[in-house]
Amino acid sequence: MKAISVLGSTGSIGTNTLKLIAEFPEDFRAAGLCAGKNAELLARQTEETCPEIVSSADEKTSAELQRLLRQRGYPTAKTRFVHGVEGHIEAACHPESEIVLSAISGGAGLLPTYRALESGKSIALANKETMVMAGELMTRIAEAKQLPILPVDSEHNAIHQCLRGGKKSEVRRLILTASGGPFRNMPKERFASITPEDALNHPTWNMGRKITIDSATLMNKGLEVIEAARLFGFSADMISVAVHPQSVIHSMVEFLDGSVLAQLGVTDMRLPIQYALTYPERWTTPLDRLDIYRQPTLEFFEPDMEKFPCLGLAYKALAIGGTAPAVLNAANEIAVEAFLNKKLAFTEIPRIIETVLGAHTPETADDLDVILRADAWARKEADIYCLSAHK
Amino acid sequence: MKAISVLGSTGSIGTNTLKLIAEFPEDFRAAGLCAGKNAELLARQTEETCPEIVSSADEKTSAELQRLLRQRGYPTAKTRFVHGVEGHIEAACHPESEIVLSAISGGAGLLPTYRALESGKSIALANKETMVMAGELMTRIAEAKQLPILPVDSEHNAIHQCLRGGKKSEVRRLILTASGGPFRNMPKERFASITPEDALNHPTWNMGRKITIDSATLMNKGLEVIEAARLFGFSADMISVAVHPQSVIHSMVEFLDGSVLAQLGVTDMRLPIQYALTYPERWTTPLDRLDIYRQPTLEFFEPDMEKFPCLGLAYKALAIGGTAPAVLNAANEIAVEAFLNKKLAFTEIPRIIETVLGAHTPETADDLDVILRADAWARKEADIYCLSAHK
Repeated sequence: MKAISVLGSTGSIGTNTLKLIAEFPEDFRAAGLCAGKNAELLARQTEETCPEIVSSADEKTSAELQRLLRQRGYPTAKTRFVHGVEGHIEAACHPESEIVLSAISGGAGLLPTYRALESGKSIALANKETMVMAGELMTRIAEAKQLPILPVDSEHNAIHQCLRGGKKSEVRRLILTASGGPFRNMPKERFASITPEDALNHPTWNMGRKITIDSATLMNKGLEVIEAARLFGFSADMISVAVHPQSVIHSMVEFLDGSVLAQLGVTDMRLPIQYALTYPERWTTPLDRLDIYRQPTLEFFEPDMEKFPCLGLAYKALAIGGTAPAVLNAANEIAVEAFLNKKLAFTEIPRIIETVLGAHTPETADDLDVILRADAWARKEADIYCLSAHK
Repeated sequence: MKAISVLGSTGSIGTNTLKLIAEFPEDFRAAGLCAGKNAELLARQTEETCPEIVSSADEKTSAELQRLLRQRGYPTAKTRFVHGVEGHIEAACHPESEIVLSAISGGAGLLPTYRALESGKSIALANKETMVMAGELMTRIAEAKQLPILPVDSEHNAIHQCLRGGKKSEVRRLILTASGGPFRNMPKERFASITPEDALNHPTWNMGRKITIDSATLMNKGLEVIEAARLFGFSADMISVAVHPQSVIHSMVEFLDGSVLAQLGVTDMRLPIQYALTYPERWTTPLDRLDIYRQPTLEFFEPDMEKFPCLGLAYKALAIGGTAPAVLNAANEIAVEAFLNKKLAFTEIPRIIETVLGAHTPETADDLDVILRADAWARKEADIYCLSAHK
């Protein structure tokens, strides 16, 4: 029986993780839950999983959560209730937990994930920002402590599987597939007039607002390129992106001998979550199988770096290295927020990021404080540029 | 430096193997060559590789070969010249050889390959019939002697690569891809009038006559299903076929956890040959890379078992087991030969095979003599049915 702390339990990855834990009651249990302000859902999850510790966004949410639970007759003394960053870190590092499923979105996920790894937990990682901001640091600690960081998002999970087909020194390049986002076929001239509504009206996926915009700008893929570089230890020139609108192939690895291995599967996050939680084993999935005879025709295109400059910026930040990826990520978060609040045009998102990146003096990212300082600096800079762009 | 005996050196796989050996002169050399009656090409290959032993079809070819070599000033005393089945076996089992690349086509490849394995050689296998006829026997010897049988044809090579992604007990099924042959889209009603010329006019591949007809009937895929079952140890119900006309994905493995791993590559036999010769390493290929951005759209279809009954017959023979696959293979060889000689209609090929298979009393295939007897019996039976079909 493996005990798991689920960071971001009320989000899409978190709820899927809890569903999966419920599918294997002999093998998994939730020892810790960590979420934001959704007290109602967190109360239900607490009732269902009886964890040792539950952390929520703040004191108010925690109080509401405990009130709801008492109302339902849950024995609240059995669970420790904490909140805020310190609470999240305590839940992530709880002595009972063996695995931490890290799915808090954005930069907020970094600190609890980092501390969990430091305290000896295996990491199942769905939070991109942890590796984008502090990838080198994370990898170093994982190696020193011999702990796995197993990727949960489908592209890196696919890469992890394909890499089993050879040695690291035998890899020629990683090929991350990308759906291409909702504006793949829109002419470049119309990009300036894209509204948040246009972008949020994404046809195939139901994701959070931030990640939906990142998918539309291809920054999501850019962050994944950086994450892949950090997770697997390859340089920028060994990571390619292929636009594959059908999203059936989740990513590929090309080896020196000309073979390309690809991973295919149904698009259900429970598959990569299960892979990460059961690795190095593969367990029978309770989900539907991929019916190879009923697939759409599969296509692959080169990404248009002119229409989607965010992807090129991510490659640039990766090539610079050090604190540059953290700065890229922070500037992007601010710019996307401004776009969602209609204070910035779609085409100004990459411009803000480029400006902040250009103004940054990169430092070696071997210290969390240095990284968090670069992050804070970039947010402030981006804020200033957003304000002036809005005037 | 690994010494290799190349069985079937003048064929398509053989010449590609010698090209590959020439690409890595520090690592590989040809210690033995084995071919049929093409004395001219065999003389050139002997000159280029200076092997310890060269076997050809018969005494006449061997004499012609030596005459050609002396004419060109080749020091014939340096090489031993042998011929016929005994000669082939001697070349396959030559003490200098570490690896035997088995690419003699048809049932004639079985004996030298079998003896090579018995005498302690690693096998790089391009000859399907060896595993179809004597797969259980081969696997047992390979296991007992801890020798690898590495598949060279692209489907099994792909499966071998994909299987590295998990344990055997974690596999749900193998998915062999098939081009579908030239008559994939032809209505069933027109099958009876297919001529050898129609079938040999295959659009994308330039293969031998026998294998071209096997591709057109899908018997080629049927034999591959049996070969896969024997090579990797899976039952018939764990092996599927997917028609994939673009032949970019060479085959796939579906795991219990819902992941499907696929291997893609350019269609050049040197890739799987190199994989088999360098395994467990992967070496940099001198060939062109797969350009994922310039691929056709990829499609997958269920094979039409009514239009292509040969595939179903292969599954049936595999399910019966024992000597049944050897009988299927022998009856098919005779029927295809009769079709090529215009003594049998295209649609009668499966009928002959079904009849011979139905008349056969299967025996356990744990002895080469039993297998060869079943093979000889099936050939005779098939001959009789072909004659009566022609009347």
